Amino acid sequence: MEVPPKPVVRRFAAWGFENESLRPSAQLLEWLRTVVGSGEPVPRVAPGSMAVINPADLPPLPAPTSTAAMDRLQHSRGQGLPDILRLRFGSSVHPPDAVCRPGTAAEVESVLRACDRHGVRVIPWGGGTSVTGGVNVPPGLGPTISLDLERLSGLEGLDERSHLATLGAGTMGPAVEAALAPHGFTLGHFPQSWELSTVGGWIVTRSSGQESLGYGRIEDLMAGVRVVAPAGRLDLLPLPGSAAGPELRAMVTGSEGRLGVVTSATLRVRPLPERKVVQAAFVRSWEDGLETVRELVQSGVPLTMIRLSDPAETRVALAIGLASSRWSPVVQRYLRARRIGDDACLLLYGTDGPRETIGSILSCARSVCRRHHGVIVGSGPGRHWLADRFRHPYMRDGLLDEGYATDTFETAAVWSGVEELRGAVSAAVAGALDPWGEATALLCHVSHPYRDGTSLYFTFFYRTTGDCDENVARWAAVKRSAMEAIVGAGGTISHHHGVGAWHAPWLEAEIGALGRALIADAARRMDPRGILNPQVLLDPTDRLEA
Amino acid sequence: MEVPPKPVVRRFAAWGFENESLRPSAQLLEWLRTVVGSGEPVPRVAPGSMAVINPADLPPLPAPTSTAAMDRLQHSRGQGLPDILRLRFGSSVHPPDAVCRPGTAAEVESVLRACDRHGVRVIPWGGGTSVTGGVNVPPGLGPTISLDLERLSGLEGLDERSHLATLGAGTMGPAVEAALAPHGFTLGHFPQSWELSTVGGWIVTRSSGQESLGYGRIEDLMAGVRVVAPAGRLDLLPLPGSAAGPELRAMVTGSEGRLGVVTSATLRVRPLPERKVVQAAFVRSWEDGLETVRELVQSGVPLTMIRLSDPAETRVALAIGLASSRWSPVVQRYLRARRIGDDACLLLYGTDGPRETIGSILSCARSVCRRHHGVIVGSGPGRHWLADRFRHPYMRDGLLDEGYATDTFETAAVWSGVEELRGAVSAAVAGALDPWGEATALLCHVSHPYRDGTSLYFTFFYRTTGDCDENVARWAAVKRSAMEAIVGAGGTISHHHGVGAWHAPWLEAEIGALGRALIADAARRMDPRGILNPQVLLDPTDRLEA
Repeated sequence: MEVPPKPVVRRFAAWGFENESLRPSAQLLEWLRTVVGSGEPVPRVAPGSMAVINPADLPPLPAPTSTAAMDRLQHSRGQGLPDILRLRFGSSVHPPDAVCRPGTAAEVESVLRACDRHGVRVIPWGGGTSVTGGVNVPPGLGPTISLDLERLSGLEGLDERSHLATLGAGTMGPAVEAALAPHGFTLGHFPQSWELSTVGGWIVTRSSGQESLGYGRIEDLMAGVRVVAPAGRLDLLPLPGSAAGPELRAMVTGSEGRLGVVTSATLRVRPLPERKVVQAAFVRSWEDGLETVRELVQSGVPLTMIRLSDPAETRVALAIGLASSRWSPVVQRYLRARRIGDDACLLLYGTDGPRETIGSILSCARSVCRRHHGVIVGSGPGRHWLADRFRHPYMRDGLLDEGYATDTFETAAVWSGVEELRGAVSAAVAGALDPWGEATALLCHVSHPYRDGTSLYFTFFYRTTGDCDENVARWAAVKRSAMEAIVGAGGTISHHHGVGAWHAPWLEAEIGALGRALIADAARRMDPRGILNPQVLLDPTDRLEA
Repeated sequence: MEVPPKPVVRRFAAWGFENESLRPSAQLLEWLRTVVGSGEPVPRVAPGSMAVINPADLPPLPAPTSTAAMDRLQHSRGQGLPDILRLRFGSSVHPPDAVCRPGTAAEVESVLRACDRHGVRVIPWGGGTSVTGGVNVPPGLGPTISLDLERLSGLEGLDERSHLATLGAGTMGPAVEAALAPHGFTLGHFPQSWELSTVGGWIVTRSSGQESLGYGRIEDLMAGVRVVAPAGRLDLLPLPGSAAGPELRAMVTGSEGRLGVVTSATLRVRPLPERKVVQAAFVRSWEDGLETVRELVQSGVPLTMIRLSDPAETRVALAIGLASSRWSPVVQRYLRARRIGDDACLLLYGTDGPRETIGSILSCARSVCRRHHGVIVGSGPGRHWLADRFRHPYMRDGLLDEGYATDTFETAAVWSGVEELRGAVSAAVAGALDPWGEATALLCHVSHPYRDGTSLYFTFFYRTTGDCDENVARWAAVKRSAMEAIVGAGGTISHHHGVGAWHAPWLEAEIGALGRALIADAARRMDPRGILNPQVLLDPTDRLEA
């Protein structure tokens, strides 16, 4: 049977590809109407009707360069909620003056040299999926190009003996796995943006995939990296371990384009697992759930993923079909019979490998769940989750059509601080729109647990109005409240989305003035005139409403 | 039964504690005589008879400070072979002008401020076990103190829920485990220097313990750290994971005192294992051994340690009793019967945990060994190794008494490069003393394997003469040859000893001029006047003969 090729045309002002969408279910809309009221659908202004200012004059660039209005528009913003709001309303559109597409590291080098000489700002572009303003073109900075790395794509080398693959920075998730699979390998890095995001983007934002419990974060996967900067190249060859001074690879991960452009990386790959299984259980309460997750991780059960939804997210998951809508009423009856009530939390846990190993790992996991009064419901919800896991971001666009805005943010803390952190964030988000007399809805889950703590991932909702600035101001109010709560409760300002422009005001609260200065020094060393991504990471001005 | 307390008096110009020693066996001496000839025993000049220059005038320091000659002498050098040679001959003795012992982070801060103001150089001192010249007092730099952190010792906090322990930087290995054990935890970090080295020293040299395969390197164990520097404090709170910009924790690990003084750290601990087992096997050849190790690691068998000795080290191990001398002849007869001949390599592999888990892990490991024609010889040699693993460094002093110098160095490479690296190093060391018409002996083992590569640990020997400079010059010749070979073959300049003064000339070959500049910028930011450990890490002058 022929499998039709995946559509590759990206949607404008929306997540993902043309011909794909995910409509919110009636139950979800009903829940939102009850919690936050009815909103006004957000329009979709056709990009053709947007007034796009003419590009500034640029020096000749030694790589293919486009000034087509649509190309520029498509590179004007990332995928944050305010980006989508601005683009749908057609308001505050600041496209780059050109989109430049170098095909080699040497071309990247030449382009950076030309831009450095002529004072042209450069915003590196991988998959354009930043949700932190990390690829946005700030107005008023003078000539600016978007440096699209899509041509630096593909498998450049595979060292089968060392389980190392060298990949172009612009290689997207599916292309990574498609290149590795014929050789029997997988990278195992599956962030939710996997279908659109790139190797280089993962590295510079310190991405963490959904199976990070088994495969590690991108910084664990990266053995070597090549960075091209105005000041020269930084070639950090693959090494399994070293004590040769401070680990500069860790300065590249999370550098968000400020230290240079990642052109390729050598990543640790693993044999393709024979099988991948995700099972589900319900626990009676969030507290029981956290204890289950903590024990699973601290006792070293070799799972590759764990996800624990709080009671609200669990109810929504049951409503929108995450836990398989067809048998959701059956599940709910069964759970009630097992004394799993309204505070029930959905727990997913998965692993991969040979069939026989998987069996014994899952059996260990089930014992831990049962010790915490968990009720195992099998692999159905897990299969559903695996099948749908990259589709969830599509729902935002469907919700905007219905008058609801939604966004996500994430943090992490040590286990002893998780409850305080979740409480502080919940309270902050709940009251964030009080000045408008508006309500918010908030869901939370654990998706990246560690022996010493866990990430917390939050999804919030509010209703939209017909005014773009007003919608962005509400979003900004929620973000600010959440960030203050996170910093106050000792959480990290980001677990895997990165800093970008929008978290930058709080970076100093986390790493101190001296810490921020260390990163700024590195940026200055690699990019003395500051042409690279100038308002990201280090620039602490609050741009949440930009 | 009362266990007598461990002697705590450190030996002068030698490894370890008074009343402990490890004499080389007759077989080892016989082998050395055959390979490198007979040398002249190295004298031991009594420290009391050394001419110690009077200390320079120092400003008053706000912490207990000693100028006693013996204290200064004991802080003049680390534990590298040339250090011990210089101290035993009583030649090139440059003690610090004082030894200062602050008791709190605040005191460290005050001392650094005072030193910064008065231009006094500061050499942080943990256990003084550097084998890279990392704590040596360079002559001609003006007033210099050794900042001994022994009073910053002990468990400052234990977060049992998060499996995190906060420890003073000066806490030595046994004190770490002794503080954690009553709470049911272990750090699991056991470098060979464990009895003498400290938490702070492990961090700033990027230490890796013998069980790093299971517990990770010190950078994996460190969740948070406090650094005090002339420019201020860097407080990086414990976090399980973060995407908040580049990972500054990784700038602290490996900073070797140049970026500030680590005063405490929060480390990831684990439940004390019920049991720890190390088993032994013999494989027919180094190549078979490497393939066995690679498969063990890449297939994910949850071992905590693996060690593979090359044929020469295996023969020496059998000779000196590593593989249990009493039954060594029996072993050798058995091995010959199983067609394990002169190229036999000793393989140790171990794990820990509950009894039942250990059983199935070791059974997996045995299957892998047998697939590569390995012959399992049980837990005897492993028990021997566990009992003796921290005693081996004592043998250097016994060998010097007999006319033989020995030192070790280590590197790491990806699997596909390991054979070339070992070949290049072996050839380089074999010919290093040709100008003198002298021979060397070289042993090698794998002790820290990773999925993508492994460390290689080398031990070399040469015979000594009655002239101190001559002995040091020979050592330097071997080091230079080895370093050039390592850099040429793509190995790291150090896997876990660090850079110090002696590897610094090759740091740039590994990380590039831009990489070195990034670290130098960080040092300048934290320590603008460069008072901290001024000739370590970044200063590329060849000081091998100093």
